[in-house]
Amino acid sequence: MLRIMWGRSNLCTKLLNNFHTKYYDVKVQRTIQTLINGNRIIKQRSFNTQRLDITIEESNQKLCHDKKQLDCSTFTYRTHTCGDLRSEHVGQNVVLCGWVQYARLSKFLLIRDSYGLTQCIVNNTYININDLPLETIVKVVGTVASRPKDMYNHEMATGEIEIIINKLEILNEVSKLPFNLRKYQKPKEQLRLQHRYIDLRFPEMQNVLRQRSKMVHNMRKFLVEEHSFVEVETPTLFCRTPGGAREFVVPTHHSGLFYSLVQSPQQFKQMLMAGGIDRYFQIARCYRDEATRPDRQPEFTQLDIELSFTSLNGIINLIELLLIKTFDGKLPKLPFKRITYMEALESYGTDKPNLRYDLKLKNVSSLFSQSSTDTNFGAFVLPYTSKLVKLTAKYKEKINEIRKKYNVRVVLNENISKEIGHEINEEIKSIIGEENDIILSVGDKKNVCLCLGEIRNVLTAVLELKSLIKINDDLEPFWIVDFPLFEMGEDGLQPCHHPFTAPHPDDLHLLNTDPLKVRSLAYDIVLNGHEIGGGSVRIHNAELQERILKMLNIDSSKLSHFMNALKSGCPPHAGIALGIDRLMAVLCTAESIRDVIAFPKSHDGKDPLSGAPNKISSDDQKYYHIKSTET
Amino acid sequence: MLRIMWGRSNLCTKLLNNFHTKYYDVKVQRTIQTLINGNRIIKQRSFNTQRLDITIEESNQKLCHDKKQLDCSTFTYRTHTCGDLRSEHVGQNVVLCGWVQYARLSKFLLIRDSYGLTQCIVNNTYININDLPLETIVKVVGTVASRPKDMYNHEMATGEIEIIINKLEILNEVSKLPFNLRKYQKPKEQLRLQHRYIDLRFPEMQNVLRQRSKMVHNMRKFLVEEHSFVEVETPTLFCRTPGGAREFVVPTHHSGLFYSLVQSPQQFKQMLMAGGIDRYFQIARCYRDEATRPDRQPEFTQLDIELSFTSLNGIINLIELLLIKTFDGKLPKLPFKRITYMEALESYGTDKPNLRYDLKLKNVSSLFSQSSTDTNFGAFVLPYTSKLVKLTAKYKEKINEIRKKYNVRVVLNENISKEIGHEINEEIKSIIGEENDIILSVGDKKNVCLCLGEIRNVLTAVLELKSLIKINDDLEPFWIVDFPLFEMGEDGLQPCHHPFTAPHPDDLHLLNTDPLKVRSLAYDIVLNGHEIGGGSVRIHNAELQERILKMLNIDSSKLSHFMNALKSGCPPHAGIALGIDRLMAVLCTAESIRDVIAFPKSHDGKDPLSGAPNKISSDDQKYYHIKSTET
Repeated sequence: MLRIMWGRSNLCTKLLNNFHTKYYDVKVQRTIQTLINGNRIIKQRSFNTQRLDITIEESNQKLCHDKKQLDCSTFTYRTHTCGDLRSEHVGQNVVLCGWVQYARLSKFLLIRDSYGLTQCIVNNTYININDLPLETIVKVVGTVASRPKDMYNHEMATGEIEIIINKLEILNEVSKLPFNLRKYQKPKEQLRLQHRYIDLRFPEMQNVLRQRSKMVHNMRKFLVEEHSFVEVETPTLFCRTPGGAREFVVPTHHSGLFYSLVQSPQQFKQMLMAGGIDRYFQIARCYRDEATRPDRQPEFTQLDIELSFTSLNGIINLIELLLIKTFDGKLPKLPFKRITYMEALESYGTDKPNLRYDLKLKNVSSLFSQSSTDTNFGAFVLPYTSKLVKLTAKYKEKINEIRKKYNVRVVLNENISKEIGHEINEEIKSIIGEENDIILSVGDKKNVCLCLGEIRNVLTAVLELKSLIKINDDLEPFWIVDFPLFEMGEDGLQPCHHPFTAPHPDDLHLLNTDPLKVRSLAYDIVLNGHEIGGGSVRIHNAELQERILKMLNIDSSKLSHFMNALKSGCPPHAGIALGIDRLMAVLCTAESIRDVIAFPKSHDGKDPLSGAPNKISSDDQKYYHIKSTET
Repeated sequence: MLRIMWGRSNLCTKLLNNFHTKYYDVKVQRTIQTLINGNRIIKQRSFNTQRLDITIEESNQKLCHDKKQLDCSTFTYRTHTCGDLRSEHVGQNVVLCGWVQYARLSKFLLIRDSYGLTQCIVNNTYININDLPLETIVKVVGTVASRPKDMYNHEMATGEIEIIINKLEILNEVSKLPFNLRKYQKPKEQLRLQHRYIDLRFPEMQNVLRQRSKMVHNMRKFLVEEHSFVEVETPTLFCRTPGGAREFVVPTHHSGLFYSLVQSPQQFKQMLMAGGIDRYFQIARCYRDEATRPDRQPEFTQLDIELSFTSLNGIINLIELLLIKTFDGKLPKLPFKRITYMEALESYGTDKPNLRYDLKLKNVSSLFSQSSTDTNFGAFVLPYTSKLVKLTAKYKEKINEIRKKYNVRVVLNENISKEIGHEINEEIKSIIGEENDIILSVGDKKNVCLCLGEIRNVLTAVLELKSLIKINDDLEPFWIVDFPLFEMGEDGLQPCHHPFTAPHPDDLHLLNTDPLKVRSLAYDIVLNGHEIGGGSVRIHNAELQERILKMLNIDSSKLSHFMNALKSGCPPHAGIALGIDRLMAVLCTAESIRDVIAFPKSHDGKDPLSGAPNKISSDDQKYYHIKSTET
């Protein structure tokens, strides 16, 4: 709407700024002409204020609606929120508190809180609203009056009433803000994060934080009230996890000794199983020092669950029910799809595919003679509509970069006959259909798949740009199962999940002879291309755990407490962790997890608000027996 | 019961150990004679097993009862818990999982889980339970059968039935435990903490952790469902709080830069008020490096609350209602008592008095001539029943130590006439009554009170030992209000609460002239001698905040983000934090907060389980740009 107005007249913009309509859409309706001549009208007392009223965000509307059953004003000196009042309140004396949204003509004062907007009217000369700075916090004591019916604002929840001000109190005045709360003039993220306490007033942030609180509360209700889970808080200051991610260290006043900040409550939750807390959960704060990875936070939150006497299916059923109950109506019917790791790799080239569009790899290895002699050999094609005709040089360069990363051969559609031979090209075309072009990759099978998986993302972006692919808006959660237990790392075998994951019982015989072929009882849940959680059946047998640790070259003496817990009569158990930040981000279609966290860090782990991390004093260094070695 | 048996015969003990009746009270009833002759009876097949059944702890009984509305077996391969089965289940095929509580006569297998005990019967020769080590985890597939009516065990929730075992599966076998789970042979705390995963199986720990989970869940329900609060997670990696407690530091890979672990979400919750999250709460993990103070943990949990547009009374009403709703029936009627700080100091010599017994200080300053010239002078007596007659040398020494600490004069009852004069002694006696003896203290008024406050604790212990004082069992929560805003520290004024606490509006005129006389809008809630929470109305005006910081000699530039938040139109607000660990400990009458925490640290901040804190590698030191300076 605003954009249309800008097109018509510069005067509109000026006028709107004068009116301080801020971040809400201005409802123009039939008054566009009035607006263009606004400068004159402003000076007239008879100006029709209703015509300029505010369109409340849908999200706020929802809050107001939810709110009807709730009282958001208990224990405060307001009687109602700015979203509460309706025709039924006419005649009541009320107290409202809120930010000055705009004030004009010495008469109209629009105040806002997190629940809505209310128009207040000055009708005596003692009250002066002329010099009220925007975003000043005020308290209005007044009487609810009905607006004339033709001046109802149906776009505003409180649009049928206004408050006749009896007393106006300035609670906290504002001098100058670093940015305005205009929706279409949102400042850059860095500035918003630096002044997060203002940024949080935007309806999007209000909505996200309130929805997040509700979501987590509903998860708790499901677990505690319907399924007798017990929430147990576990420590975050602990010892280093051998073989895990990089963990922050915390010096203590014991000379030379450090805690590590836990990367997850994994060891604790397994020890709780040994301790008879057989249905455990926790909304747990976790720490990982991964400043270099994009869209990660040094601290994050996970819903952590562990259950005794259960199986892979037990946990999968539990989480499916939990998600369905928490996101009623937003998810497909149960059960969610399950895909094996191998299937995901061979069809999508990734273990967290986005299934919302139809673009699948195809295995054409059998057309190549190497496939009969080299078990690691793979040839896969990625078919796509021939309507795309040609990839531009920019995308070809991108594809080439991906190819280099995986060290495989990639052949674009136009070169296949030339490079691979007409015959094979014909065979491929007969499989995938004439209406499709292809990208072919040949080489180490896993790398070929991963390479085409990344090319698939690039290709989707191109196809979407040209409207040649349909991307489904639905939420499409599914499970990946049958992960390998190990993968080959630089220093030998690495756990694919973590060292406590149980091997698949059907593959135990391969543990010594062909460990890379052993599947595990791990599972991931993937939502629209994001891994939102993962877990596994755990090893409960100390002997087997010892054997796995040895294969992974992990010194089990550093885990003696954990090994002793397994030996003490630890029940068989399994568990999972869901990433709350990521889950919220996907559900709110937020670009970054920063958008669903009240006070996030920037991507280099710095706090834009306080400037943390900071230097510490030499006294602190002495107390903690450390010396900062600046480089 | 067990103790009676020990008195009668050593044989009993031996027998009980043989039967592995573990930590549950043995119900002796009319079978005491049978027991004494047990050795013989054991060898007879006809031994009446019901007579030796187990008394379930009251706490477990409760769990079973609660459980009836709940299903504790969803998503598992057990059909019921060991506390579930009743006569109505007779004939059903069931699957139970649990620890071997005892196994004997090749026939009787008692299995236990966190919900109760169930007796299982072997009635075929294929199943061998003879060599089953205690605490081994087993799965029993069987059929529920009725016990003969005269063999019902009414002390056991499942006492009307037994399970005829069809299949017995050993899920995880135990070799040797570091200690047994016998109630009357509980090992020392250090050993229990070292093997916490076994210690947690004791019914007391099960009860505490499950009650804690319920308590916190009920608090959340009250706040979210009844009063529209929003739970917001705030970061723990932040900048140093100027003027606060000692904070752990966390080195980062940015050379020379450290995070601090937050001691509370104070700054964040106030910034949330500025950001429009006007009804905030969080069950928040907090960190303080106070290894030297007894019964503290380096990390602890608080219920953190902040509310916009409220007052001291608003928060007090909120918390009273929250506690009443959470601990239904355990607390006195509302409203709780309120005592001013001065009243508490002058009547009990502390700001967290225990009101469960009647022992009060009395101000007798007016009897001394100094009181008219020296406003800091105080003379107080602590009256106590003369039936005590005389304090032993041991207690006199204790009192002397306290006296030295506060540098005041203390005169015991027998010396008053001699040291202070007969006349004053008579006057005091006429005030406090002839039936009382007294301890008198004279000197700096505050120190005199604090000194007598500590002596009051010592005296109470003596009086209790001799049954000369009645200590009420009730929970007696009350509020302390009207704290001073400042106290005098070594380097000048210090905040009594924290630097963000609002001064009492009636005392603002004293801020420049007599700051130590200024009261604050802070409040503490005290329960049976423990401070379980505290909070205040905050300063929302940037100018006033600046002035207070200056008086406290705190550099406000280190709080520029916070000051800017106040300037951005921050609503007036107030808040509180309740210590969840302490609250649980008081409610469970636990001796230490360690008893209500799943995995606590020892008092020197060490983790008895893993041995943390530990040395870190030189690679880690290099990565974090620190050098450990061992001394």
